[in-house]
Amino acid sequence: MILDAGWITGFVDGEGCFFVGINSHPEMTAGYQVLPEFTVVQHERDVQTLYALKNYFGCGVVRKNHENRMAYRVRSVKHLLENIIPFFEKHQLKTKKRVDFQKFRRILLLMEKQIHLTSEGVEEIRRIAGQMNRGSLR
Amino acid sequence: MILDAGWITGFVDGEGCFFVGINSHPEMTAGYQVLPEFTVVQHERDVQTLYALKNYFGCGVVRKNHENRMAYRVRSVKHLLENIIPFFEKHQLKTKKRVDFQKFRRILLLMEKQIHLTSEGVEEIRRIAGQMNRGSLR
Repeated sequence: MILDAGWITGFVDGEGCFFVGINSHPEMTAGYQVLPEFTVVQHERDVQTLYALKNYFGCGVVRKNHENRMAYRVRSVKHLLENIIPFFEKHQLKTKKRVDFQKFRRILLLMEKQIHLTSEGVEEIRRIAGQMNRGSLR
Repeated sequence: MILDAGWITGFVDGEGCFFVGINSHPEMTAGYQVLPEFTVVQHERDVQTLYALKNYFGCGVVRKNHENRMAYRVRSVKHLLENIIPFFEKHQLKTKKRVDFQKFRRILLLMEKQIHLTSEGVEEIRRIAGQMNRGSLR
């Protein structure tokens, strides 16, 4: 299955998710770990589509999500910065998910500068992340 | 918002639905009414995307679905045959929703020949429709 950029943008507008988790992690200086991820979840019958996304982006993994669902997931900060973010900068999302992407991008750019390793950085990221994924259908 | 065919195909692979309802209708010769529809449902925050689809296809309506969701819906057999089906014949869906589309198309071609007005036609359509929209995520 060969994907093109237009199709991927439309599919991610429908099915994609940009998410930033912030977990307590006492061993880290700031006391928290920032965990960004880009995911696309599909029924297992469409796992082939997820492998095609993985192949297109050249990163990430396809794993069982729960029940009969599979997920394509990119968690590596390096891969998010080098593969995922440039794609959606070039090919703009058309739904309000674009706003989530922009916040996701801001957080990744802070992480690139290591700002998430300070308490102030974690607070700034928490503030941005708290405005993401509101009013979702799911 | 200007949409392109690639984006629409990806978005419908994620969010679109091809559905054929068969309702009892004693006044019709075959006793049943066949009601095909193409729908795309979104959270109300993305109603603009639905209007952009309506504008692109030049048919259908945008209506409240339920709660905070809106739907773009095409129910006219003429518009399905002339606008929607030719688009997805030209721009193939990539997920298993393509199989639903193919069955939907078969039913619409039967309806074009008025076959749904006979009891045998309704039974044939019921058989095809019964194989659609299985294993959906929702």
